[in-house]
Amino acid sequence: MKKLLTIVALSVACSLQAQKQPVDYINPMIGTSNFGATHPGAVVPRGMLSISPFNVAFDTTGEKNLLEKDSRWLSNPYVNENNFFTGFTHANLSGVGCPDLGVIISMPTTGALEVNHLKYGSTYKNEIAKAGYYSNELTKYGIKTEATAATRSGITRYHFPKGEANLLINLGLGLTNEKGAMLKFVSPTEVEGMRMVGSFCYNSPESAYPVYFVAKVNKAAPSYGIWQQPEVHKGVEAQWMWYNGQVRLKEQFAREVVGDSIGAYFRYQFDKEETVELKVGISYVSIANARENLYREIGDKSFDEVYATARINWNDALHARVEGGTEDQKTIFYTGLYHALLHPNLLNDVNGDFPENSTNKIGKNKERYTVFSLWDTYRNYHPLMTLLYPDQQLQMVRTMLDIYKESGWLPKWELNSTETFTMVGDPASIVIADTYLRGLTDFDIHTAYEAMLKGANTLEDNPIRPGVEEYWKNGYLSVDGGIRGPVSTTQEYNIADFAIGQLAKKLGKKADYERFNKQAYTYRKLFDKETHLLRPRYANGTWYAPFNPESGANFEENVGYIEGNAWQYVYMVTHDVKGMIQLMGGEKPFEAQLDRIFDTKQYDMANEPDIAYPYLYNYLKGKEWKTQQKVDELIKEYFQNKPAGLPGNDDTGVMSAWLVYGMMGLYPVSPAEPLYTLTSPKFNKITLRLDENYYPNGELVIESNASDKNIYIQQIYVDDKPLKGYFISQDDLRAAKKIRFELRESPLK
Amino acid sequence: MKKLLTIVALSVACSLQAQKQPVDYINPMIGTSNFGATHPGAVVPRGMLSISPFNVAFDTTGEKNLLEKDSRWLSNPYVNENNFFTGFTHANLSGVGCPDLGVIISMPTTGALEVNHLKYGSTYKNEIAKAGYYSNELTKYGIKTEATAATRSGITRYHFPKGEANLLINLGLGLTNEKGAMLKFVSPTEVEGMRMVGSFCYNSPESAYPVYFVAKVNKAAPSYGIWQQPEVHKGVEAQWMWYNGQVRLKEQFAREVVGDSIGAYFRYQFDKEETVELKVGISYVSIANARENLYREIGDKSFDEVYATARINWNDALHARVEGGTEDQKTIFYTGLYHALLHPNLLNDVNGDFPENSTNKIGKNKERYTVFSLWDTYRNYHPLMTLLYPDQQLQMVRTMLDIYKESGWLPKWELNSTETFTMVGDPASIVIADTYLRGLTDFDIHTAYEAMLKGANTLEDNPIRPGVEEYWKNGYLSVDGGIRGPVSTTQEYNIADFAIGQLAKKLGKKADYERFNKQAYTYRKLFDKETHLLRPRYANGTWYAPFNPESGANFEENVGYIEGNAWQYVYMVTHDVKGMIQLMGGEKPFEAQLDRIFDTKQYDMANEPDIAYPYLYNYLKGKEWKTQQKVDELIKEYFQNKPAGLPGNDDTGVMSAWLVYGMMGLYPVSPAEPLYTLTSPKFNKITLRLDENYYPNGELVIESNASDKNIYIQQIYVDDKPLKGYFISQDDLRAAKKIRFELRESPLK
Repeated sequence: MKKLLTIVALSVACSLQAQKQPVDYINPMIGTSNFGATHPGAVVPRGMLSISPFNVAFDTTGEKNLLEKDSRWLSNPYVNENNFFTGFTHANLSGVGCPDLGVIISMPTTGALEVNHLKYGSTYKNEIAKAGYYSNELTKYGIKTEATAATRSGITRYHFPKGEANLLINLGLGLTNEKGAMLKFVSPTEVEGMRMVGSFCYNSPESAYPVYFVAKVNKAAPSYGIWQQPEVHKGVEAQWMWYNGQVRLKEQFAREVVGDSIGAYFRYQFDKEETVELKVGISYVSIANARENLYREIGDKSFDEVYATARINWNDALHARVEGGTEDQKTIFYTGLYHALLHPNLLNDVNGDFPENSTNKIGKNKERYTVFSLWDTYRNYHPLMTLLYPDQQLQMVRTMLDIYKESGWLPKWELNSTETFTMVGDPASIVIADTYLRGLTDFDIHTAYEAMLKGANTLEDNPIRPGVEEYWKNGYLSVDGGIRGPVSTTQEYNIADFAIGQLAKKLGKKADYERFNKQAYTYRKLFDKETHLLRPRYANGTWYAPFNPESGANFEENVGYIEGNAWQYVYMVTHDVKGMIQLMGGEKPFEAQLDRIFDTKQYDMANEPDIAYPYLYNYLKGKEWKTQQKVDELIKEYFQNKPAGLPGNDDTGVMSAWLVYGMMGLYPVSPAEPLYTLTSPKFNKITLRLDENYYPNGELVIESNASDKNIYIQQIYVDDKPLKGYFISQDDLRAAKKIRFELRESPLK
Repeated sequence: MKKLLTIVALSVACSLQAQKQPVDYINPMIGTSNFGATHPGAVVPRGMLSISPFNVAFDTTGEKNLLEKDSRWLSNPYVNENNFFTGFTHANLSGVGCPDLGVIISMPTTGALEVNHLKYGSTYKNEIAKAGYYSNELTKYGIKTEATAATRSGITRYHFPKGEANLLINLGLGLTNEKGAMLKFVSPTEVEGMRMVGSFCYNSPESAYPVYFVAKVNKAAPSYGIWQQPEVHKGVEAQWMWYNGQVRLKEQFAREVVGDSIGAYFRYQFDKEETVELKVGISYVSIANARENLYREIGDKSFDEVYATARINWNDALHARVEGGTEDQKTIFYTGLYHALLHPNLLNDVNGDFPENSTNKIGKNKERYTVFSLWDTYRNYHPLMTLLYPDQQLQMVRTMLDIYKESGWLPKWELNSTETFTMVGDPASIVIADTYLRGLTDFDIHTAYEAMLKGANTLEDNPIRPGVEEYWKNGYLSVDGGIRGPVSTTQEYNIADFAIGQLAKKLGKKADYERFNKQAYTYRKLFDKETHLLRPRYANGTWYAPFNPESGANFEENVGYIEGNAWQYVYMVTHDVKGMIQLMGGEKPFEAQLDRIFDTKQYDMANEPDIAYPYLYNYLKGKEWKTQQKVDELIKEYFQNKPAGLPGNDDTGVMSAWLVYGMMGLYPVSPAEPLYTLTSPKFNKITLRLDENYYPNGELVIESNASDKNIYIQQIYVDDKPLKGYFISQDDLRAAKKIRFELRESPLK
């Protein structure tokens, strides 16, 4: 049966090979420069494990423009412009802004055994990065490396030349700032262990936790063991420690070894070219589970079989298929979808076990997601999942509710069942409300609602909404209230309250609706008529001065805002665009201010607060062409088929989701409003494969006469009926079979 | 059944209590000063686990005469003159010269949780140290502590005052220079883990290994968890690590934590005085075995039951009982026997598992010994075991043969199945030959002989006898041969060759006998007629010059000798006293040289090379009274009922064995010669409980009119027949029921 399946998989793989499939457009190199923070390694959709080349640790002497992990704030295991490979990491994050994971490093070398990565590292060439596959050639050794992955396990393959060959598993090196590892050989070909990781974004260090693994080579080595690189002893005893600072080789040592800098080695002597495969399974629960993950997912499967399966899975996971457009456009589109399918990823083992949040218990028998970067993802990512992957989105919502049940709070920035408390606001409430309001209701809405109320109403020791007492009392967080980024955070709370209000309305909770909906617009108290911006304010009502609206650009710390400035936040009120138009004094000044933001380069494509700005022209009758123009310009400027082809951190797929939407011609502009606003698509035909359980037509086709020049909308048709305006409700979209855009070269002014 | 046994044990304990028993004379404080390197902790005979107070880590600022573990070469967990307690260590060595073990530290405190031993440590008072029991009172906290032990497990008990109480298990601190630990809570009252130890005597660092443990409290704590004290990060990232260098508390964390400085805590809030018991089991095989050791040895037993059993076991283990003598004399005698029953200790778990030597395999179903400090113990310790504990001695020999089978070599200085290659010579051959020649033959003598030949004859890569090729060729190791202490080592090889020769003779291997016996006297080539000393020599035969015979005193490094000088080594030829008399030019100059060594204070009671010197007068007719005088003087000067009551390192019981012999009036003066030489005993009656399987009489009584003044021998009677001379063969001793010494106040000149 297994063999049969394998043959089927291979034959499908072969037929996939025959013509270029969507999967073949995926270019994992996109985002590996310009701080995109993605990696080009092998991974499957929502994989717990990924295998990334690790090239951010090198000798910094004499280096300029350092992209070295310990020399700056660097959050990725791989940077395209670097060229010093020190191994493959088997647990990684993609597109995040803080360093963590990047551990369980495998490295092939030749010649004498060397375990110091600064010495054993190698430059490389001939990189190949495809969905589920990565390869390079190590110039120092003449070794070709390859990597492929299953969900919780993966394989690296090393093509060694004749002679001495070494395969290292380095547990000392890592992207994370945590240290500490354990290793134990259980047979000459199998080693098990763990590595401490955590303190993501320099938060929650007390929650640092182990990632467990089992690693197995397919060829027994005549020599194998554990190395240990102890710290250099500096005390009196150093004079007797002739081995002080020297590496220790524990040949064939069969008990546990623990330490900060340890690793396993396999030493071969090949009399001809030989390949060695290293299979690794990981788990966040136990070594036994890591082993089960490895044996049940990969077992005896070959590298080629595992890769063939990964490729099929990726091809199948691309629920939007495009026709027309250039090869580069197809590449950035499919790669965008690919990036949107990395996080949240599965946390549960193949047997359903996972570490619970805060309880120190092992949860059982669930599909559990992790890596919730919700300040980022509430804005567009989760609506995209709601549309294209509703089952996954529902399970993510259920995971959030489980986290609430376990920890007492909804997640904010969750990573492997630890809450990192990164960023601000109450984003989980928005995601859950948005999901429900868009029609995915198959979760425990009562618990969800209870969780939202707790986050909104708990006045003291509230980890989700610090300062909420002042917020409810005054409507805004004050400069002197002690909460970081009081303007930003007020806006975030407003958006969450809008979402909760909309949900309350839907659920028939009228009093709650009125209370929350009223609170959703209190940001207006921060509107400064002088600058037409939101401005920090003291508790007593006086304005913060001197007020420099530019302060806060490029992520610099400032008084009012989190990762942004007044320009980048003023229009982050998509639930109240009409209100903001009023505040501005009408559509004209609103438009002028928006124009000014773009014209003066205050618009920051690389971060989330202003991510919806280009779509705000759709609220101004007759100005919709500016949305079409801006989106087109921004895609062309920031999203390209090259390593620097993302505007900045992908933020667990949020930038990629923005691109995917932009190229499809629609955008969920206002969280918790079940609608999309529309812009010109970039392909002639886009077929969305929808889940019939939630979208009865099972498919939505977006057609257009898109071309490089045809970027402006003449008319939109839904199922051949002209659409009035540039918005479509979730219900109308659900009912539609086809949206057709009639495009033109010049703006429809 | 269990209950019944307990009651029996307790009632025996009670009857023991009624009158002062031998066990009650044991004073574990002896040897805890003056670098005796014993510890006063709780332990049972040959126990794998011991629980020692740990007081060698403190703030050294402004301290003089530092006896702090990192400030000098310090080899013991406890020094009597120190007074800063930082916990109980659960794995310790006794009387050795290098730091190792001293780990798994438990510490009670009160008030806020503090895990830095420099801050949580306390002075103490009211120390009580008895066989199997230790107690003190921590002045900082008002906590009384107690410790008792079984073989592989033990209990500490803490009497907390009302209020906040903490129990720490500190895996960061340790006497060993190794680092690295793992911890995992398996229930609110039970934590398991491991701690790396090894690199004993700064040797074999690559063999560092884990000691596993399970620790269980008898009262659940409302708060418990793991602390982690990470290193202070110094790189660029330190600026974002607000927690840099701060202790992390991982409350109720239930997965593994690994790191160099971690520990477990239990935090109580007591509304009255309360006691907490901590039961710990250890193993060198696995955590599962540590748990089995704990549960099978102690299980539900109370502290008092375990101590009662320990006390009975100690009392029963004292196979020599004395009458007469002072209380202090009884104390030092029984304590000497006690110290001789600590090492070698059991290495196998209760289920028979143990780590093999060099194979990385787990041996099964054996009684396995460890801690073989053979350069020390071959001289007198093992003959004492052969006499009083023949079953144990045989099992130690069998262990040595297993080590040979496992590693390819007999042990030299073995510790927990690692060979530390400390000191020089081929001592295991001597021990095995001596054991066989003294009549304990129930082991595989053919394998033993094969092992001896391998050690003696392997010319290259010989870890036991480096330089042996030159030794066989020239008869001695040369100054230029590159081997440390060439004179000492030549002498050691000679003694081993004598032993092998004697065994060969016994086994009827005539050619081997002749070859080895001839080689046994080659030290004579190093005899320098000018100084009447052995002198380092070059390979070409010229003498090393300038030659300073004093060089090497007090353990200083020197050209010819290991831990000694020419005076301390010249008479380390007890297999060839007659030959040495000839070299010296007759008995007179031999005696004069020996007198000179004592008179000029060149004699070093604190180390082994000259340990038999006082007995050499017995080889000089009419001068035997000098042996009686010297032994009496040395006992009185160096062996006393006080912490500084050992001359120096106990050397795993060798100094104590010397004392026990000296007080019994006999000494195994020449290894592998099955005889004892005699001196005046210190008690009126000494009853040796002998094993009838090896000593048919089952008992040997040594009687005398010993007193403080009666220290000289008038006549010795064996079974009432006058003994001619001052030697008795092993066979005659085996046949004897009673040896009676007629003593007098003045020398019999």
